[in-house]
Amino acid sequence: MDVFHFFGTEEQKRKWLVPLANGEIRSSFVMTEPGLASSDAVQISTSIRKEGSDYVINGEKIWITGAGDKRNKIYLLLGRTGTGQTKHDQHSVVLVPTDSPGITVLEPFMLYGFDDGGHGGHHRVKFENVRIPQSNLVGKEGMGFKIAQVRLAGGRLHHCARTVGLAERAIDLLKERLVTRTVQGGKPLKDLSVLRAELAEARISVDQMRLLVLDAAHKLDKYGSKDARASISMAKVRVPEQALKVINTAMEVYGGLGLSSHIPLASWYARTDSVKRMDGPCAVHREVVAKMELREFEKRKSKL
Amino acid sequence: MDVFHFFGTEEQKRKWLVPLANGEIRSSFVMTEPGLASSDAVQISTSIRKEGSDYVINGEKIWITGAGDKRNKIYLLLGRTGTGQTKHDQHSVVLVPTDSPGITVLEPFMLYGFDDGGHGGHHRVKFENVRIPQSNLVGKEGMGFKIAQVRLAGGRLHHCARTVGLAERAIDLLKERLVTRTVQGGKPLKDLSVLRAELAEARISVDQMRLLVLDAAHKLDKYGSKDARASISMAKVRVPEQALKVINTAMEVYGGLGLSSHIPLASWYARTDSVKRMDGPCAVHREVVAKMELREFEKRKSKL
Amino acid sequence: MDVFHFFGTEEQKRKWLVPLANGEIRSSFVMTEPGLASSDAVQISTSIRKEGSDYVINGEKIWITGAGDKRNKIYLLLGRTGTGQTKHDQHSVVLVPTDSPGITVLEPFMLYGFDDGGHGGHHRVKFENVRIPQSNLVGKEGMGFKIAQVRLAGGRLHHCARTVGLAERAIDLLKERLVTRTVQGGKPLKDLSVLRAELAEARISVDQMRLLVLDAAHKLDKYGSKDARASISMAKVRVPEQALKVINTAMEVYGGLGLSSHIPLASWYARTDSVKRMDGPCAVHREVVAKMELREFEKRKSKL
Amino acid sequence: MDVFHFFGTEEQKRKWLVPLANGEIRSSFVMTEPGLASSDAVQISTSIRKEGSDYVINGEKIWITGAGDKRNKIYLLLGRTGTGQTKHDQHSVVLVPTDSPGITVLEPFMLYGFDDGGHGGHHRVKFENVRIPQSNLVGKEGMGFKIAQVRLAGGRLHHCARTVGLAERAIDLLKERLVTRTVQGGKPLKDLSVLRAELAEARISVDQMRLLVLDAAHKLDKYGSKDARASISMAKVRVPEQALKVINTAMEVYGGLGLSSHIPLASWYARTDSVKRMDGPCAVHREVVAKMELREFEKRKSKL
Ligand SMILES: Cc1cc2nc3c(=O)[nH]c(=O)nc-3n(C[C@H](O)[C@H](O)[C@H](O)COP(=O)(O)OP(=O)(O)OC[C@H]3O[C@@H](n4cnc5c(N)ncnc54)[C@H](O)[C@@H]3O)c2cc1C
Ligand SMILES: Cc1cc2nc3c(=O)[nH]c(=O)nc-3n(C[C@H](O)[C@H](O)[C@H](O)COP(=O)(O)OP(=O)(O)OC[C@H]3O[C@@H](n4cnc5c(N)ncnc54)[C@H](O)[C@@H]3O)c2cc1C
Ligand SMILES: Cc1cc2nc3c(=O)[nH]c(=O)nc-3n(C[C@H](O)[C@H](O)[C@H](O)COP(=O)(O)OP(=O)(O)OC[C@H]3O[C@@H](n4cnc5c(N)ncnc54)[C@H](O)[C@@H]3O)c2cc1C
Ligand SMILES: Cc1cc2nc3c(=O)[nH]c(=O)nc-3n(C[C@H](O)[C@H](O)[C@H](O)COP(=O)(O)OP(=O)(O)OC[C@H]3O[C@@H](n4cnc5c(N)ncnc54)[C@H](O)[C@@H]3O)c2cc1C
Repeated sequence: MDVFHFFGTEEQKRKWLVPLANGEIRSSFVMTEPGLASSDAVQISTSIRKEGSDYVINGEKIWITGAGDKRNKIYLLLGRTGTGQTKHDQHSVVLVPTDSPGITVLEPFMLYGFDDGGHGGHHRVKFENVRIPQSNLVGKEGMGFKIAQVRLAGGRLHHCARTVGLAERAIDLLKERLVTRTVQGGKPLKDLSVLRAELAEARISVDQMRLLVLDAAHKLDKYGSKDARASISMAKVRVPEQALKVINTAMEVYGGLGLSSHIPLASWYARTDSVKRMDGPCAVHREVVAKMELREFEKRKSKL
Repeated sequence: MDVFHFFGTEEQKRKWLVPLANGEIRSSFVMTEPGLASSDAVQISTSIRKEGSDYVINGEKIWITGAGDKRNKIYLLLGRTGTGQTKHDQHSVVLVPTDSPGITVLEPFMLYGFDDGGHGGHHRVKFENVRIPQSNLVGKEGMGFKIAQVRLAGGRLHHCARTVGLAERAIDLLKERLVTRTVQGGKPLKDLSVLRAELAEARISVDQMRLLVLDAAHKLDKYGSKDARASISMAKVRVPEQALKVINTAMEVYGGLGLSSHIPLASWYARTDSVKRMDGPCAVHREVVAKMELREFEKRKSKL
Repeated sequence: MDVFHFFGTEEQKRKWLVPLANGEIRSSFVMTEPGLASSDAVQISTSIRKEGSDYVINGEKIWITGAGDKRNKIYLLLGRTGTGQTKHDQHSVVLVPTDSPGITVLEPFMLYGFDDGGHGGHHRVKFENVRIPQSNLVGKEGMGFKIAQVRLAGGRLHHCARTVGLAERAIDLLKERLVTRTVQGGKPLKDLSVLRAELAEARISVDQMRLLVLDAAHKLDKYGSKDARASISMAKVRVPEQALKVINTAMEVYGGLGLSSHIPLASWYARTDSVKRMDGPCAVHREVVAKMELREFEKRKSKL
Repeated sequence: MDVFHFFGTEEQKRKWLVPLANGEIRSSFVMTEPGLASSDAVQISTSIRKEGSDYVINGEKIWITGAGDKRNKIYLLLGRTGTGQTKHDQHSVVLVPTDSPGITVLEPFMLYGFDDGGHGGHHRVKFENVRIPQSNLVGKEGMGFKIAQVRLAGGRLHHCARTVGLAERAIDLLKERLVTRTVQGGKPLKDLSVLRAELAEARISVDQMRLLVLDAAHKLDKYGSKDARASISMAKVRVPEQALKVINTAMEVYGGLGLSSHIPLASWYARTDSVKRMDGPCAVHREVVAKMELREFEKRKSKL
C-alpha cells in the first residue's frame, strides 16, 4: 500500500488502494527471480517491453507471497524496461492484474514442510506475453529500485513487528506449559530453575526486540526510509534471530509435542526463519549496518 | 533387534529376529503415553492383563515411530503388568503383532510440516482389548524398564550416528553452494571470509560429533550399556545440538531455498530436532551426566 | 546519594550529601560478608549493638568498593540491630566515618589481574568495636533491607549505563583497528566480511543495550523502584552479557594486543564481568524476572 | 625441542637439547614483530646479516614468552637473511644465547592484568648488533618458515593439551563449589537444575576437547605435521573456545570470588584466552580449515 500511497496516480489509487485498504483484495510484490542472489538485483531480467500502447511482460518469478490466495488481485511487478542511463535505472514497477492472460501460478515454495497458506503461499509464477496498458506503470520508467526500497523499508519493519508478536505468544505457550506440566514426583516444570532462567531470558529478548522495532519505526516515521535504513536493517538482523531462540525455548519445553502440528510453535518457527530471508537475507543487512558504521567513523576521524 | 538378541526366546528370535535382520519386516518400540513426561515412565498405565493363557492390552500410545509403515509387523509394547514389588518392576514388554484385532493407528505426529514418512511416520496408536498369547512376553514380567534401557542405549547411539551422517551431508551441500553461487559482481560465495569461517566451524563440529559418538560406541561395546551410560547421554545432548547448527548454516547460505522442499536441508533440520526429543529429552540426559559427575566427585572427595 | 536523599535527616544531608554531591568526598555501601550467598542476605551477621548513646559495630565485610580510595569518608553499613519482629527487619543501615577507630582496610579483591583502582579498589574491611553516635542511624531501625533496595535499584541501572558506555567505546576501538590494520597483501581488516559482520552485530547489541537501560530508567523515574524492578533486573542480566561479547569482539581483532595493558579493552572486560556479579549475580536477577512473569501469567489466567 | 631434534647439528643438540630435555634451561621462540599481522610473516624484518664468520642481528621482537625467566638461556630467532629466491625463503632461524651483548629485555605484555610469570612472562626484546657465530644457524639459510612450521605444529597441540587440563581442573573447582556453597534456605547449589545443566555441558565440552586433541596428536604422530595440519588447526580453534566457556561457567558460580585472585580461575581464563592468539589467531586457523575443505571438495567434484 505504501507504493500506491507514494507513487500511484489518482486513477491507480482509486482502483487498487481503496479496496486494498478495505481488505477486499490483496496484492503481491513480484521481484525475485530464480538463480539470482538478492544482492544482485540489477541483473533482474524479466522483460517489460513496449508494444503500441501496452507493455508486454515475459519472465519467471519465484517466492511470490500471496500468489496462491484467491483474494489476490494485483501484482506489483519489478522488471527490466531497459531504457535508463545507468545500471540502476533500467528497471520499473508495473501493475499486473492477477487474472491477466499469460500468467501461470506454479508450485509453492514450502517453509519446513508448511505451505504457509495463511499468507497465501509463496509461489513460482510464469509470465508469458502478459499484456497491460502503459497507464499501469507506477511512477516513472527507471524508478523500479527506488520504489522497491520504499516498499521494502516498511515491509521489513512490518515483518519484524509481527515477529515480535509471535515471540510474545510463544512466551505465553511456554508459561502455559510450565504451570501445567509435571515431571517425576508431580513437581511442576515451573519449579525447575533451569526453565525459569530460560523464561527470564525469553522475556528479556522479547522486550529488546520490541524496543528495537519501536526505535526503527520511530525513525522511519520521523526521518523517512533513508535515515531509518540502518535501524531497519538492525531490526531485520536481530529480531528474527532472537525470536527463533524464544520460540525454540518454548518448543523444547513441549518435548515431542513442540515439533508437531498439534500446537502452532513449529509453524511459527518456520515462519520466523523465513523472515530472516525475505526482503534480503540477514547477511546483506549486516553489510548495510557495517557500511554505515565505517562511513560514520571515517567521517568523524577526518574531522579531527 | 537388541531386545530380541538379549532377551528373546529361541522361538521369538526365529519368528521375528530373523526377518528383522533380513530387512523383510520392521518393528516399533511402543512406550510413550499422552500426558506423561518421559521422566515419569513409572506411571505408564497401558494395561497388560492376564486372561487365561493370554494377555489383554488396553491403552493409548503416542509418537510410535514406524506405525504408519506397511512393512511394520511387530510392536514391542511396554505396559503395566503390575505384579512387581517396587514401582520399578510393575512393567513388562510384550510382542504385539501389528495386525492383531483391536489396534487402531491414528493420526501422525508431524515434525514441523513433515510427516517423516521415510521412517514410517510417528503415530498415535490405540489398543482396545488386544489379545496376545503369554508366550509373547519378552524376558520376565517386571523386566520392562530393564529391557527398555537396553533398547534405548543402542537406539540413542544409532540416532546420534545417523545425525552425524546428516550433518556431514549438510556440509557437502554447503560447499556445493559456496562454489556455485555468486553474489554481486560475479564473486563466488566461497570468497567471503564470513562463510569460510562458518564452513570451518561446521567441519570442526562434525568431527567433534563423530569423535563423541565413536567414543561412546567404543565404551558400549567394551563395557556394556551401564558403564557407557554417561557417554551415551553426552552424545545424546551434544550431537543433535551441534548438528542443528551445522544444518542451519547450510540452510542459511541457500537463502530462501534453504527452507523449501526443493532441497532436503529443512527436512534434515526437522529430523535432527526430533532426535533431541526421542528416547528422552536433552534435559533428562543432562541430568544423567550431572548426577554421575557429582557422584564421582563425592566418592573421590570421601577418599581423601 | 539516593539513600541520603530519601532517608537522611537534615543534619545527615548537610554533613554528607552536600560534599558527596559536590564530588569532594566519596562513600561506600558496606553489606557483603564472607561465606554468605547474596541471596541469603537475611543472615548478615555484622552486629550493630547499642551501648549508651552509641552503636558499637563488630564484623567483617568484603568487596567494599572504594574502601581503598583516600577521598572515601563515609561508609553506609548494613548490619544486624536485631530487634525487629520478622527476619526481614533485623537489619539497619548506619553511617560510619571511614576514620573511625577500629576499622582496618585489608587486602583488595582483584578483577582478573586488575585492582580496579579507578573505582577505589574492592577491599576486605574489618570492624572491631567501632563506635558511632546513634544519630548516625539512617531511617529507622529494621529498615536495612528497604534502604538497600532503594540504593541498589539506582545503583544497578547506573552500572548498566556505564557498561553501555564502555561497549560504545569498545566499538570505536574496533573500528579504529579495522581501518588501520592490514593483513597479508596489505588488505585492511575492514574489507573482511567476517569482521564487518561482527561490527554490525556489535552495533546492534549496543543499541539494544542502550534501549533496555533507557526503558528501565524511564520506568524507575515514572513508577518508582518497585514497579521498575523487573526492568532493572532485565538490564542487569542482559547488558553486561552483551557488553562482554562486544568488548571481546574488539579484543579479538586486536590479536595479542587485545589482552595486554597497552590498550584498555581487557580492563573493560574485567570491569564488565564484575558488573554481572555486583549488586546480585545474574542468576538471582533472572529469578526476579521469572517470578514476575509467572505471577502475571497466573493472575491473568485466574481472571479467565 | 622439536626444532633441535629435527634440524639441529650434533654440536647444537649436545649444547642445548640435552640441558633443555633435562629441564636445566629454557628457550624462547622469537618471531613476532610489532605492527605486523601474524598472517604477514613474510614481512618479518629483523635482520640477520653476515659479517666475517658471524651473524649480526638487529631488530625488535614482541610477545617473547619466557624472556623474563632467569632459566632461559637460548633464543631461536627467526629473522631475515634475505638471500633466497622466493619470498618464502628469505628467512632463517638462528640460535642466540640470551646473555649475548646487545639484547635488552623490555616491558612485559600482560594478560588481563596478569604477568603470566609462571610461563616466564611475554616480553618485548630488542636486538642491537647482537653477534653470534655462523655455526649457530639452524638447518640451512632460507629454511626459516619450514622450521617455524614444525615448531608451531607441535607447539599448538601442546598448548591445546594444557588447555584441556585447565578446563578439567575448572570442572573440579566447579563441583567443589556446587557441593559446598548454599543459597537461601541452606540448599546447596548442586540442587539447582540450572547449575546441574551447566555442569553437564561443561563435562561434555571437556570430553569433546580432549578427543579433538587426541585425534590431532594421533595424526601428527602417524602422518607428520603436514597431514595433521587441518586437525591441529581445528583443535587450535575449538579447544580454547570451549575451555573459555567451561572456565567461565566455574567463575560465574563462584560469584565475585570467581574474578578474584583468591582462586586461580580468572588467571586460567586469561591464559586460555591467550591460547586463542598465540601461534596464529583463530581466524587464521579457520582459514586453514576452510581452504582444505574446499580443496578436497573441488578435487572430489572434478573426479565425477
Ligand atoms: C518466505 C519468503 C517470502 C518471500 N516473498 C517474496 C515476494 O513476495 N516477492 C519477491 O519478489 N520475493 C520474495 N521472497 C524472496 C526473497 O526476497 C529472497 O529470498 C531474499 O531476498 C533472499 O534471496 P535469496 O534467497 O536468493 O538469498 P541469497 O541472496 O542467495 O543469499 C543467500 C545466502 O548467501 C549468503 N550471502 C549472500 N550475500 C552475501 C553477502 N553479501 N555477504 C555474506 N553472505 C552473503 C548468506 O548466507 C545468505 O543468507 C521471499 C522469500 C521468502 C523466503
Ligand atoms: C520423532 C519422535 C519419535 C519418537 N518415537 C517413539 C517411539 O517409537 N516409541 C515411543 O514409545 N516413544 C517415541 N517417542 C517419544 C519420546 O520418547 C518422547 O517424546 C521423549 O521421551 C520426550 O518426552 P516428552 O516429549 O513427553 O517430553 P517431556 O518429558 O515432557 O520433556 C519436555 C521438556 O520438559 C523439560 N523437562 C522435562 N524433564 C526435565 C528435567 N528433569 N529437567 C529439566 N527440564 C525437564 C525439558 O525442557 C524437556 O525438553 C518419539 C518422539 C519423537 C519426537
Ligand atoms: C566488583 C564488585 C564490587 C562489589 N562492591 C560491593 C560493595 O561496594 N559493597 C558490598 O556490600 N558488596 C559489594 N560487592 C559484593 C556483591 O554484591 C556480591 O558479590 C554479589 O551480590 C554476588 O554475591 P556472591 O559473589 O557471593 O555470589 P553468590 O550469591 O554466591 O552467587 C554466586 C553464583 O551462585 C549461583 N547462584 C546463586 N544463587 C542462585 C540462584 N538463586 N539460582 C541459580 N544460581 C544461583 C550463580 O551461578 C551465581 O553467579 C561487590 C562485588 C563485586 C564483584
Ligand atoms: C600469550 C602470547 C604468547 C606469545 N608468545 C610468542 C612467542 O614466544 N614468540 C613469538 O614470536 N610470538 C609470540 N606470540 C605472538 C603470537 O604468535 C601472535 O600474537 C599471534 O600470531 C597473533 O598475531 P597478532 O596478535 O598480531 O594478531 P593479528 O594477526 O593481527 O590478528 C588479529 C586479529 O585480526 C583478525 N584477522 C587477522 N587475520 C585475519 C584473517 N585472515 N581473516 C579474518 N580475520 C583476521 C582476527 O580477528 C585476529 O584475531 C605470543 C602471543 C601471545 C598472546
